Amino acid sequence: MKTHTEYLWFNTPRRTDFVNITDQVEAAVRKSGVKDGLVLVNPMHITAAVYVNDAESGLIEDFQSWLDKLAPRGLGYKHHRTGEDNADAHLKRQLMGHQVTMAITDARLDLGPWEQVYYAEFDGQRKKRVLVKVIGV
Amino acid sequence: MKTHTEYLWFNTPRRTDFVNITDQVEAAVRKSGVKDGLVLVNPMHITAAVYVNDAESGLIEDFQSWLDKLAPRGLGYKHHRTGEDNADAHLKRQLMGHQVTMAITDARLDLGPWEQVYYAEFDGQRKKRVLVKVIGV
Amino acid sequence: MKTHTEYLWFNTPRRTDFVNITDQVEAAVRKSGVKDGLVLVNPMHITAAVYVNDAESGLIEDFQSWLDKLAPRGLGYKHHRTGEDNADAHLKRQLMGHQVTMAITDARLDLGPWEQVYYAEFDGQRKKRVLVKVIGV
Repeated sequence: MKTHTEYLWFNTPRRTDFVNITDQVEAAVRKSGVKDGLVLVNPMHITAAVYVNDAESGLIEDFQSWLDKLAPRGLGYKHHRTGEDNADAHLKRQLMGHQVTMAITDARLDLGPWEQVYYAEFDGQRKKRVLVKVIGV
Repeated sequence: MKTHTEYLWFNTPRRTDFVNITDQVEAAVRKSGVKDGLVLVNPMHITAAVYVNDAESGLIEDFQSWLDKLAPRGLGYKHHRTGEDNADAHLKRQLMGHQVTMAITDARLDLGPWEQVYYAEFDGQRKKRVLVKVIGV
Repeated sequence: MKTHTEYLWFNTPRRTDFVNITDQVEAAVRKSGVKDGLVLVNPMHITAAVYVNDAESGLIEDFQSWLDKLAPRGLGYKHHRTGEDNADAHLKRQLMGHQVTMAITDARLDLGPWEQVYYAEFDGQRKKRVLVKVIGV
C-alpha cells in the first residue's frame, strides 16, 4: 500500500473566495504513484470547506448569496463573545459539506465530466492549509 | 490490499427522486472480496447526492419539501444565464452532504440498524452514474 | 495494511447534546498501530452527526439555535405519521454533514490547530453507537 501526504496553502485576497483546486489534487495523485485508491481533501481550518461542484461563475455567485441567506454574517452570535466575528463562516462550511473523498482509478482522479474540486474560503486574508491524503496501490 | 470499482447507472422517471441503493452497494462489497476496509459512494454528477438516512416514505417526503424550502426552484439564479434551469439542484445536493464513506467489517457493510444508503436525484430524467470504490483487505 | 474497528457508545442526558470525541478518536488511532492512513468516524444512528469544528461553547450554542431555525422541531412532518417525533433530528444531521474522514500522519490524527471532532446528538437519552474505522500502514 502506498500513501502520500501534501499540504496546500491558501491566502485569499478576499474574506470569501472560491478556488478551483482540481489541478492541485490531480498533481498530488500523480506524485503519489497510486493507481487505485482514495484521496481525502480536508481543510485544516474550520472556517473553510472543500466541496465538489460545477466550475461555473454564475453558480459560484449563487452559492455565495445562498450561504449568506442561510447563515448571515454579523448577527448576535454567541461565538462573538470571544472577540471573533466569524461565526457565520463556521456555519457556512458545515452547509457546504466541509470535506471530500474522491476515488482514484487508473492513476487519475475518477471524476464525472462536471465534477470539480473547490476550496471555499469564508474567513480569508490569512494563510490556511488544506490536507491532501492519498492511499491505495 | 484489494480494490474494486463499480459504476451504478440511474435514469429516474421524475426530476426529483430518492432511490434506496443499499443492496447495490452491498453487492459491490461482496464482489470486491474485501473483508475489512472502506467503501466510497460518490455521485459523478453534481445535481445529485448520496446520503445515509431512514428508509421511511414520510421522511423522504419531508426531505423533499424541506429542500424545496431551503433551496427553492426557479428563482433568479445567476447559473441560469448559461441556459440551465437547475441551480436549485446544485444547492440541494450540497445540503444533503453529497457523498458517503461507509465501513466494511467481516465482509459486510457495517451499518447501524436504520442506516440505509440513498441516491437523491434533483435533476433526473437522464442517465447518470454513481461511483462505488472499495478498498481494504 | 492494517485495519482497526471500534464502537463508541453514547447515552446523552439531553435530547440535543454536543460531545467532543477527539480524544476517543485519537485513542482508537493509537490502538490501531496505523502510522499513515485514514480514519472514518460515522454515527450508526440516523438522528446524530459527527462533524469537525471549534471546541468553543458559544459556537456550539450558535449551532443549536441555527439548526433549530433551519430544521425546526415539531412541525407537521410526514415522518411523524409513523408515531415518531424526531423528523427534525433526521434533517439536522444532514445539515451538519453527518460523518467525517480524517487523515493519520506519523501515527497521529493529522488535524489543524482548531479542528476538533464532535458527536452531535439530536435525539438522545438512549444508547447509540459511533463507528471508528482505521485503515492504513
